[in-house]
Amino acid sequence: MRPYQFQTADKIAAGCHTLERLNEYLNVLPPVRTALVLSQPSIVKAGYAESVVRQLEQSGIACQLNADVRPEPTDQAIIAIFEKYKDEGYDMVVGIGGGSVLDAAKILSVLATNAMTIEEMLGIDKIAAAGVPLILIPTTSGTGSEVTPNAIVTLPEQELKIGIVSRYLLPQLVIIDPLLTLGLPKPITAATGMDAFTHAFESFISNKANPFSDMFALESMRLISQSIETAYHHGDQADAREAMMLGSMYGGMALTCAGTAAVHAMAYPIGGKFNIPHGVANSMLLPHVLAFNLDAIAHRMNLVASAMGITDSHRCSSGEAADRVLERITKWTSELDIPQDLRSFGVTDLDVPDLAIAASKVTRLMDNNPKQLTVDDIESIYRQLIS
Amino acid sequence: MRPYQFQTADKIAAGCHTLERLNEYLNVLPPVRTALVLSQPSIVKAGYAESVVRQLEQSGIACQLNADVRPEPTDQAIIAIFEKYKDEGYDMVVGIGGGSVLDAAKILSVLATNAMTIEEMLGIDKIAAAGVPLILIPTTSGTGSEVTPNAIVTLPEQELKIGIVSRYLLPQLVIIDPLLTLGLPKPITAATGMDAFTHAFESFISNKANPFSDMFALESMRLISQSIETAYHHGDQADAREAMMLGSMYGGMALTCAGTAAVHAMAYPIGGKFNIPHGVANSMLLPHVLAFNLDAIAHRMNLVASAMGITDSHRCSSGEAADRVLERITKWTSELDIPQDLRSFGVTDLDVPDLAIAASKVTRLMDNNPKQLTVDDIESIYRQLIS
Ligand SMILES: NC(=O)c1ccc[n+]([C@@H]2O[C@H](COP(=O)([O-])OP(=O)(O)OC[C@H]3O[C@@H](n4cnc5c(N)ncnc54)[C@H](O)[C@@H]3O)[C@@H](O)[C@H]2O)c1
Ligand SMILES: NC(=O)c1ccc[n+]([C@@H]2O[C@H](COP(=O)([O-])OP(=O)(O)OC[C@H]3O[C@@H](n4cnc5c(N)ncnc54)[C@H](O)[C@@H]3O)[C@@H](O)[C@H]2O)c1
Ligand SMILES: [Fe+2]
Ligand SMILES: [Fe+2]
Repeated sequence: MRPYQFQTADKIAAGCHTLERLNEYLNVLPPVRTALVLSQPSIVKAGYAESVVRQLEQSGIACQLNADVRPEPTDQAIIAIFEKYKDEGYDMVVGIGGGSVLDAAKILSVLATNAMTIEEMLGIDKIAAAGVPLILIPTTSGTGSEVTPNAIVTLPEQELKIGIVSRYLLPQLVIIDPLLTLGLPKPITAATGMDAFTHAFESFISNKANPFSDMFALESMRLISQSIETAYHHGDQADAREAMMLGSMYGGMALTCAGTAAVHAMAYPIGGKFNIPHGVANSMLLPHVLAFNLDAIAHRMNLVASAMGITDSHRCSSGEAADRVLERITKWTSELDIPQDLRSFGVTDLDVPDLAIAASKVTRLMDNNPKQLTVDDIESIYRQLIS
Repeated sequence: MRPYQFQTADKIAAGCHTLERLNEYLNVLPPVRTALVLSQPSIVKAGYAESVVRQLEQSGIACQLNADVRPEPTDQAIIAIFEKYKDEGYDMVVGIGGGSVLDAAKILSVLATNAMTIEEMLGIDKIAAAGVPLILIPTTSGTGSEVTPNAIVTLPEQELKIGIVSRYLLPQLVIIDPLLTLGLPKPITAATGMDAFTHAFESFISNKANPFSDMFALESMRLISQSIETAYHHGDQADAREAMMLGSMYGGMALTCAGTAAVHAMAYPIGGKFNIPHGVANSMLLPHVLAFNLDAIAHRMNLVASAMGITDSHRCSSGEAADRVLERITKWTSELDIPQDLRSFGVTDLDVPDLAIAASKVTRLMDNNPKQLTVDDIESIYRQLIS
């Protein structure tokens, strides 16, 4: 086995009401005077962004709040924010929001210290220097971005989403407060929750899976499986929301260790070209890609089924376990009202060949898939989602 | 539930032969010119310390090797090493050895940047500033020190062992190479392995247990339970050694999140006064303290028994599970030839009252114990080990 590695946020504070205690954790940061606080309208409306600003100002940190981050941000949208603040400058970036805000915050942290364009940062380990200190506070249970060295940008000209991977994108402080997700709307709970599950699942079956990723992946699948339906139907239950947030965070740790695979590779082109939200794209694709992979991964499905609480690992064959896993994930599709038809996002049969070629080029992720996909295989999976 | 936190080494690289790839991981450090490499004679003899020096010098880092760290180091021994190198100075510290070397390395890293005595550092969060960069390479599977913010010093005048706890004691890089432990002698395999198990077990039953510590503790107990007997009887089996190293590391993560309890509180006085190695003291005490705690922790023993692979969690009562856990740990005591009599270390009945008072004063750990121990309770447990 190759060497395997673990690396994450410097400090993670978790639990209900931790947002209100932000100031207690600031001692992990070097002294800063000014902060750029990045958020989304729904988070401002809920009063969470204000809580950050109020607390930081109490600690003597002057804040500028920007709540203009659009979902699945483009490179240009992020640069526009940077241009707005770069002259005045900022010593720290705080991102409070979904994965879109966290990824934008990560990039704004390194833009402040690197004379590089976003384009030059795309890919692995391209960023030259550490950014300004970074605090990430997720408000969805989905991307796990708060603990990964990744940020994803949408490139509309190229009709693609591409990743930046660099240890300089890891934050100094993460606040995991499940209460921030109590008001997450049902469709977002479903899509982001399935994204988190997909991170864990794909890391577990990845060709790069290892003892670190396996532990995080199994714990993530355990937590999400036991709580995703409750979080969806009874969004105000803090216990289920907490399990989802931890599951999502562990999913991020798992994918940092082992990488995601074909589901994510196929999600990026439909996200980039048709603006399908990342979680929706993944949750639509997961059961179909899983069915394709099933024979190659059956030997690992006993552990997954057992973590998901749908079998007693000692007692059923790998084949049976694999079937039950697929069954449960398919059940979620209807239980959580996951969209079933790419047509509703404007995708037609005619788009499939180009999408398939684009997906096949996401080799960073396709290489992790336990079974190789030809362009034909990819086409046929996309077509299963066009009814 | 109170907020709970996670914080560990910046980067962990694991797997067989990772020591030989040390240079590949140096990019996580700021540029350094000189290193103090700390070790123990057995590690030098095995060629491991030399491998570190050779690789660092290839990277242009001038090294001074000091292999004089004695087991369970005293404050004075550490200061003596510091005095020897402080004029010339060093930009980085590398510790390669057991917990004794790692703890000494941690302290030497912060001595270089803080005008403080070790005495002033004792306790929680007393260290004022970050140390010079620190690399830790464990050669025992025991303390988990490579991932904890703790360092333990022996204070012979006070006949005590005391902890320093500070996030500045966390290293920038950890190398987990199971091959370094292939030659670990049987008694050290047993004692350090039981120390690691005790970290996980005490974190799991700690009053401060939380979702982070639970995950690491259960994974640690799972790995150690499946491999400790093999590692003891067939020390050259790399798989068992790898499981032990990971189990030990997760034990360190668990104790960082939740703290250890009465076993450790009672181990420090007998360690400090009678030079009983830390792992030996813990492994002697564990079954007796466990029996004392048993009724208060039975409700959590199903998960422990299931992680240890000695029961099917769905099928037996908590009481039964608790009995099986105690049985298995007691079995290890004979299977691994753990010493049974404190008398062989020079402890007599007459020493018990003072030892018990000293242990009762280790409130940082005693407060974590699920059941309160009176001085009488502590005395009676020590007496069970004097036959
Ligand atoms: N960095 C990584 O490791 C990583 C991993 C996976 C995905 N991603 C990226 O993350 C982005 C998706 O992030 P996401 O799935 O979290 O969605 P998102 O951040 O785009 O948010 C989706 C919607 O939910 C709203 N919202 C967020 N939190 C809310 C709350 N608490 N209450 C009410 N509304 C709330 C937002 O305003 C937004 O309208 C994509 O760009 C994707 O590519 C990054
Ligand atoms: N910092 C923490 O979180 C923490 C936790 C628990 C214990 N500790 C402390 O760690 C110390 C004990 O560390 P330890 O139990 O690892 O033992 P140790 O470092 O004292 O080593 C024990 C013996 O094993 C030898 N040895 C080590 N590795 C070897 C190898 N690969 N092959 C052959 N011989 C080898 C050493 O030379 C030594 O003689 C104590 O001082 C204890 O209090 C620290
Ligand atoms: Fe994702
Ligand atoms: Fe210990």
